Amino acid sequence: MAKIVAVIDIGSNSARMAVFARTSRYGFYLLEECKSRVRISEGSYENDGFLQEIPMQRTLQALKNFTQVAKSKGARKIFCVATSALRDAPNSRDFLQRAKREAGVQIKIIDGDKEAYFGALACLNLLHQNEGITIDVGGGSSECALLNGGAIVQKISLDIGAIRIKELFFDGKNDIEGAKSFIKKELEKLPSIFSHKYALGIGGSIRALSKIIAKERGVAFLHGLEVEAQYYLDFCKKICNGSSSNLKDMGFNEDRLDSIRGGALIFASLLEYFGVKKVITSGVGVREGVFLQDLLRGHNGRFPKGFNPSFRSLLDRFEGKHSLGKEIKREALRLFDVLSPLHSLSSELKKPLAIASRLSMLGEVLGCHSCSLHSSYLAFNGLEYGYSYQERQLVKTLIEYSNKKTPKESKFKHLSLKDLKILTDILALAKILATKDCKLEYRLDSDNDLHIIGESYLARDQIQKISKNFDFGIEFGEKTLSRVFHKTHYQVSF
Amino acid sequence: MAKIVAVIDIGSNSARMAVFARTSRYGFYLLEECKSRVRISEGSYENDGFLQEIPMQRTLQALKNFTQVAKSKGARKIFCVATSALRDAPNSRDFLQRAKREAGVQIKIIDGDKEAYFGALACLNLLHQNEGITIDVGGGSSECALLNGGAIVQKISLDIGAIRIKELFFDGKNDIEGAKSFIKKELEKLPSIFSHKYALGIGGSIRALSKIIAKERGVAFLHGLEVEAQYYLDFCKKICNGSSSNLKDMGFNEDRLDSIRGGALIFASLLEYFGVKKVITSGVGVREGVFLQDLLRGHNGRFPKGFNPSFRSLLDRFEGKHSLGKEIKREALRLFDVLSPLHSLSSELKKPLAIASRLSMLGEVLGCHSCSLHSSYLAFNGLEYGYSYQERQLVKTLIEYSNKKTPKESKFKHLSLKDLKILTDILALAKILATKDCKLEYRLDSDNDLHIIGESYLARDQIQKISKNFDFGIEFGEKTLSRVFHKTHYQVSF
Repeated sequence: MAKIVAVIDIGSNSARMAVFARTSRYGFYLLEECKSRVRISEGSYENDGFLQEIPMQRTLQALKNFTQVAKSKGARKIFCVATSALRDAPNSRDFLQRAKREAGVQIKIIDGDKEAYFGALACLNLLHQNEGITIDVGGGSSECALLNGGAIVQKISLDIGAIRIKELFFDGKNDIEGAKSFIKKELEKLPSIFSHKYALGIGGSIRALSKIIAKERGVAFLHGLEVEAQYYLDFCKKICNGSSSNLKDMGFNEDRLDSIRGGALIFASLLEYFGVKKVITSGVGVREGVFLQDLLRGHNGRFPKGFNPSFRSLLDRFEGKHSLGKEIKREALRLFDVLSPLHSLSSELKKPLAIASRLSMLGEVLGCHSCSLHSSYLAFNGLEYGYSYQERQLVKTLIEYSNKKTPKESKFKHLSLKDLKILTDILALAKILATKDCKLEYRLDSDNDLHIIGESYLARDQIQKISKNFDFGIEFGEKTLSRVFHKTHYQVSF
Repeated sequence: MAKIVAVIDIGSNSARMAVFARTSRYGFYLLEECKSRVRISEGSYENDGFLQEIPMQRTLQALKNFTQVAKSKGARKIFCVATSALRDAPNSRDFLQRAKREAGVQIKIIDGDKEAYFGALACLNLLHQNEGITIDVGGGSSECALLNGGAIVQKISLDIGAIRIKELFFDGKNDIEGAKSFIKKELEKLPSIFSHKYALGIGGSIRALSKIIAKERGVAFLHGLEVEAQYYLDFCKKICNGSSSNLKDMGFNEDRLDSIRGGALIFASLLEYFGVKKVITSGVGVREGVFLQDLLRGHNGRFPKGFNPSFRSLLDRFEGKHSLGKEIKREALRLFDVLSPLHSLSSELKKPLAIASRLSMLGEVLGCHSCSLHSSYLAFNGLEYGYSYQERQLVKTLIEYSNKKTPKESKFKHLSLKDLKILTDILALAKILATKDCKLEYRLDSDNDLHIIGESYLARDQIQKISKNFDFGIEFGEKTLSRVFHKTHYQVSF
C-alpha cells in the first residue's frame, strides 16, 4: 500500500479530500484536508435528479485541483467516491466520463449501504467509544449503522439530507411541518433494531453543531467530543426556529447557513427516534472508511488488538532511535504497583500512565529545553484517534508535570489532586531511573518510604531535587530494610 | 564527524555535559544537558590548590554516569575538558589517571586562553549579537574575549571566580571589601582594548542572574536575552548586600545561594570596567565551543555565510519530503515586493518573513489540524541559536496568524498592527498560492487591489474566505488591468 493516500468524497454539499500519511504498517495520520463547496446537486432535486451544468463544472474544477494537491503531497493512490447526489442522477455517467477525461479521476459511485459501511468502519476503528448508532447526515441522504461488540451489525441509508430538505421545504418558503412529515415518513423504513443510548455523529452538518458546543465548553478537539443528546435536541430546536441572522450569531459559518436547519431537523429526529442519551462526535467518516478498507484489507476491517494508529504514528514520527520510552514505561508501571499501598488508584489508570510514560520523551526531537512541555504538546495533539478528550488531557497533564513542576489542581472528575500528584511523581521518578538494563529494585517500607536500590549517583542527585514535593519519602539503598522487607514482600508485584 | 557528540566540562562548581545531535553537515540541536554539582575544587583554595579526596570521588562518580547517559543517547564521541580547578591543582595528574581508569574518560585540561576561546567561538557562531566582550564568570576563574568583525580579537583569563571568592572572602566571614580589592587587582591585568558597549554573558553565575530577570520580563528563553547593563549593576549590588534568605526570596536556586554573591561581584566589576551598556545572555559556552571547534574544523571556525544551524536543523527534522516551504517563501517575498506601495515596511523584514514562510508548514508533521499553530510552536522553540527573542517572537506570530485568524495587537516595537497584518496576510496568501511551478503573476492596480493571475479554482475559493479581513482588495485575473499594468509595471520587482 502506498505511503501517502488521498481519498476524495463527492457529497451533495461539498467535495472533500483527505490525504493520509502512513508512517508504518498500520500507523498513520491525517496530512491534509481540502474542501470545496461545489454543491454538485444544486438544482437537481427540482429537476428530476439531473445534475446541472454549472455545478458539474465547479466539481470538475475542484477535482482537478484536488488531484494536484494530492500529487504535490506525494500521493500515489487516489480514491474517489461519490454518494447520494450522483446515485440519484440519471446523467451521472456523463459526469463520470468527464471527470475521468478532464481531471483524470475515476469516481466510484457507492450505494447507501456502502456509504453507511464506510462511516461505520471509520468510527469502529478510530473512535474511543465505538458502540452505538452512527448517524451521518449528508446533503442528499443520511446513513446509519449499528455498532455492537466490535462489529457492524446493521446499516441503512435514508433519502433525507440537509440540502434536499432545504431545496424541497425551505427555499423560498418555510415549510417546517412539511419537512417534519417528510422525515417522519423516511424514518418508518428503519428496522426496530436501531435503538441505542449512544449516537456517533458523522458528517459536516453534525460537526458544525458540535463545533459550536465544543467552543462553548472549551474543548480543543471535535473528534471524540461527548455531549448529552438533550443538549443537541434543544440546540436543534433553536436552530430550526431561528432566522439566518440568528444562525450567524450562534456561530455558524457562512457556507452552512442555508443548510443547517435541514441538517439539524434530521439529526434531532434521528436522536429522538433512536432514544439516544449521549452523542459522540466523530471527526472521521466516509473518507477514513475508504482509507481503512484499503489499509485493513485482509484483516477483517480491524486493527490488531490493542493497536492504536495515532500512538504508533507518534512513535514512528518523533521517537528517537535511542529513546528510553519503553524503559520509562516499564519503571512507571513497576512504581505504580510498588506504591499501590499509598494510593487508591484504579488499575485502569495504568493505561494513561503507560501511554504518557512511553511518550514522555518525544519532545527530545525538539531539544532538551522544556522537553516535558514539547512531549505533552506532541502527545496531546497527536493522539488523534481512539482516545477520549479526558484521556488526551490526562496524558498531556502527566507528561507536562513529569519534571520539577507540580500540578496545582486536578481537572479530572475521578482523580483527586493527591492521586494526580502520585501519578506525576511516578512518571518523574521513572524518567530519572529508566536505563536500558532493568536492575533497579523498589521496596516500600512500613513508614511508607520508597526505597530505591541500584540507582546511579546522577539519578540520586536528581531525585533529591524533585522529591521534596512528593507525598512519600524516598530512601536510597537497603540499609534499614531487612526487617521491613519481609513485611512488604507480598505486596510488591513486579 | 559522529552524529551524536557529547562534551563534558568540569568546572570548579559543577560538572556539566551537553549532548549534541547533528541532523546534517552543519545542522544540529541540543539533545541533552546534564549537570552535577560536584564542586571538585571544594577545599582546594585553602589547601594550596590540592584536590581533596571526597570532591574527586564525587566527580568520578558523575563522570561515570555522564558517559552512561551519553552512550545511551547514542554518542560515539565524548570530549571532556577541565578548567580552572584542575589547572591549579598540583595533583591533577592523579585525578586524570583515575578518570581514565575508573570512568574511561580522557580529560583534557585547557588553559585560560583556550577556555576564553571556546566561549568566544560559541558566542560568535550561536548568538544573534556577536560583537562585544564575552564574560564567562566561572567558579575558579573568569574568561573574557573581545569579538569584533566576526573574529575573536583578544582573549584573557583572570584568576577570579565565584567559588574562589566565596572560599577566600565569604566562608565564615563577610569581607566584601577584601573581595573587591582582590578583584580590582586582577582587573589591572586587562589590556586597555577590552572596552565595549556590549557584553555577552556566559556561564552558570550569569545565567542564574539572567534567569530571574527573564522571568520578571516574561521572556521564555535565556539565550539571546538583551538587558541594559545598569539593570544588572543594580541587581548585583542588591545581591552582594543580601543575606542567604534574601537570595532565596529573589528566586535563586538552592545550589547557587553560596556562590552567587561572588559571581555577582565579579560580573558587576567587569561590566563597569568595560563600560558595558547592554548585556546579551548566552546560553552557550565552553561546551558548545568544543563541539563547534570539531564541527567547523577546516572552516575557519565559522559557519558558511548566511547559514543558521537551528533553522537548518528544524528543516532536517520536521520538513516533509513534499513540503512546499521553498515555494511559500518564494511567493511571500514576491508579494512583499508587489505590495510595497501599500506598506512602509523596511526590507529588513524580509528576513523574518522568509524564515516564517519557509517554516510555515513544518507543523504538517503533526497533522493538518491546527497546522499553523504546530508550525509556530516548532519554529519558536526550535530557532534556538542565532536569533534575538524579538525575531523568534515575530516568526512565531507570523506563522501562527498565517491562516484565517488575524492578530489583534502588535507586541513589536517597530511594527504597527497594520504592518504586522500585512505580513500575516502575505504569508496566508503565499501558503494558498504556492505550487511547485512558479506561474502566478501579481499586479497592484491604481485602486490598491492586488490582481492575482493564474491561481487555481481551489486557491480562489480559499482566498475569498480569508481576504475579507485584508486591508487591500483582491481581484482574480487581468480583465480590467491592461490600463493599470503600465502604471505599476516599474514598481513590481520579481
